[in-house]
Amino acid sequence: MAADATTRAHALADAAIAGDRLALARLLTAVENRTPVAEAALRQLYPLAGRAHLVGITGPPGAGKSTLVAALLAEVRAAGRPVAVVAVDPSSPITGGALLGDRVRMQSYAGDGDVFIRSMASRGHAGGLAATTTAAAAVLDAAGFDLVFIETVGTGQSEVEVAAAADTTVVLEAPEMGDEVQAIKAGLLEVADLVVVNKGDKPGAQRTAAQLRAMLVPSVARGGPAVAGNDSNGERPTPKRPDVLVTTASTGAGVPELLAALDRHRAVGRAAITSGARRTRAAAQVQSILADRLAGRLRAPGLAARTAQVIDDVAAHRLDPFAAADLLLDAALGATSDEA
Amino acid sequence: MAADATTRAHALADAAIAGDRLALARLLTAVENRTPVAEAALRQLYPLAGRAHLVGITGPPGAGKSTLVAALLAEVRAAGRPVAVVAVDPSSPITGGALLGDRVRMQSYAGDGDVFIRSMASRGHAGGLAATTTAAAAVLDAAGFDLVFIETVGTGQSEVEVAAAADTTVVLEAPEMGDEVQAIKAGLLEVADLVVVNKGDKPGAQRTAAQLRAMLVPSVARGGPAVAGNDSNGERPTPKRPDVLVTTASTGAGVPELLAALDRHRAVGRAAITSGARRTRAAAQVQSILADRLAGRLRAPGLAARTAQVIDDVAAHRLDPFAAADLLLDAALGATSDEA
Repeated sequence: MAADATTRAHALADAAIAGDRLALARLLTAVENRTPVAEAALRQLYPLAGRAHLVGITGPPGAGKSTLVAALLAEVRAAGRPVAVVAVDPSSPITGGALLGDRVRMQSYAGDGDVFIRSMASRGHAGGLAATTTAAAAVLDAAGFDLVFIETVGTGQSEVEVAAAADTTVVLEAPEMGDEVQAIKAGLLEVADLVVVNKGDKPGAQRTAAQLRAMLVPSVARGGPAVAGNDSNGERPTPKRPDVLVTTASTGAGVPELLAALDRHRAVGRAAITSGARRTRAAAQVQSILADRLAGRLRAPGLAARTAQVIDDVAAHRLDPFAAADLLLDAALGATSDEA
Repeated sequence: MAADATTRAHALADAAIAGDRLALARLLTAVENRTPVAEAALRQLYPLAGRAHLVGITGPPGAGKSTLVAALLAEVRAAGRPVAVVAVDPSSPITGGALLGDRVRMQSYAGDGDVFIRSMASRGHAGGLAATTTAAAAVLDAAGFDLVFIETVGTGQSEVEVAAAADTTVVLEAPEMGDEVQAIKAGLLEVADLVVVNKGDKPGAQRTAAQLRAMLVPSVARGGPAVAGNDSNGERPTPKRPDVLVTTASTGAGVPELLAALDRHRAVGRAAITSGARRTRAAAQVQSILADRLAGRLRAPGLAARTAQVIDDVAAHRLDPFAAADLLLDAALGATSDEA
């Protein structure tokens, strides 16, 4: 069955590279469900990826993320460039129902083979969300999409992490006032490479942009995953104060300037991208797979009963979770030694 | 230094058990920062925990979670019961600025030793949020708090997971209409043991409650973490349609009934709690520690350079992340064998 999955994966991957959008969609479903097909396909496709510009777009609900993505798509397509969108839809347990109108708008690209729009359901555990999205982006990258937008709502830690794992992270804000909004801004802005005040036709947009420029401090290196890359070699990206742009996504005003800013960030940021965001992303992917591998060993026939007993002991407070983790780690290592 | 941390941890844990609130606060800070002190203290305290009723309270922004928690506190204290609150404040990257008014209200308990309110910053990676909150609840449990409210905003996957890991999960809704809200409800409701329509004095509250009762299906067993407990032995909690209550937290109307419902869920749910939520929570804790242990091995002097090289290779797409994970897992195992 594993061999069968590999055969199917290679067939799907070959077809996706050749431009078969149905094969691409199927691959992304496999990635989302973390199937054996996904692993085999990703192993084949991964060396072909790494060329695309991954742009994360996040912000609070109502800032106009989907409308802006739609406007960016129109701009990118007018330039004849292929483009993909991964909309991380936190639909379980939260549904991104607000995107409906924009989804309809995006369906106008249904016949355009150079546009690929994918909604990710973000099921499963939170830790896997960034890894799954990164894997989906790698598949689109390998399939020839040179520009991939990753849209997430900036109201949960996992969701923000997903957007922040992109090469360039855009944080969207609507022109609004009040202490609460300011506080939200301060948190979200930490991950921004570019800040966009959308709904620029509303009163206060320019003032909000000015306030944001005043409050922005140069971004510091972000805390990466626990399996960190080598960041002790002085290659960290230089902290840089993010630019603040104003757009009106509904009319397209400011959108060409935003696309130009993204392209600029891509060009000048290439070295920093390699040493910063890309390494963080790679570490997160590897860490997620490591956790899966370890969990797989603990669920394997030889250890499943032992694992269940240990978890039961922790649940009943007969065993503390640290002792439990050490027991299971030793058991997993022992199981491997037996195999070898 | 490890011995020193253990000594300090035991001193703090002993003091926290004896009722020293400053020691308790320091322990929770250590838990939040995942220090060696936290591990040693948790190992000591864990056998004392497992008695408290953990109540998760989540819902969309503006539903009145903090006001309801404040009203519940008043009710619980009127009955003379000790109570703790863990407010998971997704302040990085999102700040829960909306809670400010309620925080001020809660400060009225500043002189009350039987009330302990703690805001968790939820820094660090998303996967660790549930584990950190569970550990904090265990510390409060061991310190004698028989009832622990865990309040999170239900707008991100990690945040909802935290509340859903409690013994009893309350999902709060405001009386509102529209397709978008319905969709959000449908997602959040999946994790609910009790649904509360707050702002019961607003028009439409009773109608919203009726609609919710109509749309609620018996809750199914939730997907747990990858290191799952033994759920193949038929001990899963029986799916049960959650009750829908109406409260007006600002006046206290309906709050005694809510507290009674919580106590009832605790009493009748004890067996199911042990086989369901508690096992899921234990598995999540162990899994998080396993990931930390593995990451620790990979960051240790003997392996750090190798790990960094592998991550760099993945970042440069010279190596796929699955091959990288297998390389690192073998390296971590090898490192252990050398030690043994």
